[in-house]
Amino acid sequence: MEKFEVNILGCGSALPTIQHLGSMQVVNVRDKLYMIDCAEGAQLQLRKSRLSFSKINNIFISHIHGDHCFGLIGLISTFSLLGRTATLNVYGPSELRTILLSQLHWFCPRMDYRVEIHTIDTKQHAMIFEDKSVEVYTIPQKHRVDCCGFLFKEKQGLPHIKRDVIDAFGIPVCYINNIKLGMDYEMPDGEIIPNHLMTIPPEPARSYAYCTDTLFRPQNAELLQGVDLLYHESTFCNKDAAFAKKTFHSTAGQAGEMAALCNVKKLVIGHFSARYKSENILLEEAKQKFENTILAKENLCITI
Amino acid sequence: MEKFEVNILGCGSALPTIQHLGSMQVVNVRDKLYMIDCAEGAQLQLRKSRLSFSKINNIFISHIHGDHCFGLIGLISTFSLLGRTATLNVYGPSELRTILLSQLHWFCPRMDYRVEIHTIDTKQHAMIFEDKSVEVYTIPQKHRVDCCGFLFKEKQGLPHIKRDVIDAFGIPVCYINNIKLGMDYEMPDGEIIPNHLMTIPPEPARSYAYCTDTLFRPQNAELLQGVDLLYHESTFCNKDAAFAKKTFHSTAGQAGEMAALCNVKKLVIGHFSARYKSENILLEEAKQKFENTILAKENLCITI
Repeated sequence: MEKFEVNILGCGSALPTIQHLGSMQVVNVRDKLYMIDCAEGAQLQLRKSRLSFSKINNIFISHIHGDHCFGLIGLISTFSLLGRTATLNVYGPSELRTILLSQLHWFCPRMDYRVEIHTIDTKQHAMIFEDKSVEVYTIPQKHRVDCCGFLFKEKQGLPHIKRDVIDAFGIPVCYINNIKLGMDYEMPDGEIIPNHLMTIPPEPARSYAYCTDTLFRPQNAELLQGVDLLYHESTFCNKDAAFAKKTFHSTAGQAGEMAALCNVKKLVIGHFSARYKSENILLEEAKQKFENTILAKENLCITI
Repeated sequence: MEKFEVNILGCGSALPTIQHLGSMQVVNVRDKLYMIDCAEGAQLQLRKSRLSFSKINNIFISHIHGDHCFGLIGLISTFSLLGRTATLNVYGPSELRTILLSQLHWFCPRMDYRVEIHTIDTKQHAMIFEDKSVEVYTIPQKHRVDCCGFLFKEKQGLPHIKRDVIDAFGIPVCYINNIKLGMDYEMPDGEIIPNHLMTIPPEPARSYAYCTDTLFRPQNAELLQGVDLLYHESTFCNKDAAFAKKTFHSTAGQAGEMAALCNVKKLVIGHFSARYKSENILLEEAKQKFENTILAKENLCITI
C-alpha cells in the first residue's frame, strides 16, 4: 500500500512546555509532504523527524494564533538558507498574508524561491488544494478567531495488474499502463480480454481529518463520515468543560463523541492544555465515547 | 561574591541545527536576569534552564536577523499567558519597534502587561540601561545590518564589614549601613573609629561583553579593555576568512585576536556556522591567539 502517514511534530496548546510544543504536523502521502500548522520550533522538529525539507511544498495554517504559526517565518528563512528554489505554497486565513508579507520583508528580503500565500475562507467547506495524490478540503471550525481544519482525501490509486494473467496471454509490457487505466486488451487473433480479468481493484482511498481549535461541532459530522483517522483537539478534560466552552475549545469527551458521530476508524487526540501532568485522564474520557483512541505525542508517526 | 553568570541558551548561527540553536543568552547579575538576543525556541530553552521567567524584565536585541530575534514574540506571548503584569523592556535597533508592534497587534492584542520598546543607536557606544546592579552599554559592530554588542558593567558593591571589629568596639547594628556607605563611627567618649578599620574593600566590579555579529573590530579594543569575560562570535574557521569577510562575520582567529587586544580575562566563542561538524578547530584557532578560550554550548552557565 502506498504511504499515507501523519507525523505529529507538536501537539500542545498555547503554552509550549518541555512535554509538548505547539501544533504542527506533516502528512506524508506517497512521499509528498504536506505540513499542517507550524508552531515555534517547527524547523527543529522537522530535522529531528528526518523528514526531507525539500519535499514540503504546501503548508496549511488553521488559524492565526501563535501556537499554530510562530514557526513559519523561521522555516521559510531556513528553506532559503538551504538553497531552496521551488515555490512554497502557504494556505491560511486572510490575515496570514499581511503577517507573512511583513515578516518576509524584514527577515527574508532576498530569497531564491517564491512564497505564494493562498487565502482560504475558513467558514466554507471547500477543496483548496489538489494534486495527483490528494485533495485537501477546509473544515469550518468554531474558535475565537477564524479557524478551519483540513480534510486530506487520498485519490484512488490505479488497479493492480494480475501478473500471471498478463504472462499467460503474452500481453506486451507497453499495454500495461492502458490496462491500469481501465482498457481491455485485444489479442492478435481479435479475442478481447476484459479488463477485470487482468486487474485487482485498488485499495480504497484513505482520508485524514485535522480538527483544531474548535468548540464541539457536530454539524461537521457529515463532512467527516468514515474518515480513516481523525485528529481532534482535546484541550481540556470533561470537568473543565465550562472553561473549554469559554475559550472555544473541546473536551476529551467531545473529541470522542465527534469520532463516534463521524464513524471514523481511529481517533488521535491532541492540543493538550499544559495544566495536566498526564494526558491519561483525557485518553480515558475520549475512550468512553470512542474506544479506538490514542494520544498524540511529539515524534509519533501514525500510518493510515 | 554576588552572582554574575552568563547562561548560554543558544550559540549557533543563521541555520539552527540539532546541535545549536540561534543566539540567546541570559545574564544573571545578583539574581536579576537580563536577556541578550532571543532566537527561535527561547522560551523552551528558558524552561530547560530553570531560570525564572518573572525575573526577566529587560531584553537586549543586537540586530534584526531571525537567528537573534525569532523567539521574541513567542516569549512575550507566553509571559502573557503566565499572567505577567510587570512591564517588559525590549532594547533594539529602530526596526524592532515596527516589527514587534505588528506582531503584538496580531498575536497579543490583549495583555495584562506592557512591552516598552527602546530604540538604540547601534552606531554609538552609549549607556542604554542602568539599575542598582549593572550598567549596560552598546558596542558598535560592523555587520550587514545595524548591529551592536552589549557591555555589562557590574556596579561596585559595598565594602564588607569586619564583624570582629564592630563587636570589639560594641558598635550598634543600626550604624552598619552608614559604615558600609563609608562613614566613620564616633564612640560615646568621642573617639573616632575610622572607616577603613571597620571595613574590607568590596570585590572589584566585574564586566561581560557580548560581541556578535561582526567583522573583526579592533577599534572596539579600548571600550573592552580588561573585561572579565568576552563572548565573541567565531562563525568561521581561519581558512574561511574570505567568506567571513563577505558575510560580515569573524573567524576564530579574529575572536582570539580581539580577546588578546582587549586583555580580557576569558574568551568564550560562539555563533558557530552549521558547516563544522565539530568546533574543536575553531577552539584551537582562537587559542592560538588567546589561550584562555572556551567553546560556548547550549545550557552552559559561565560564572564571572
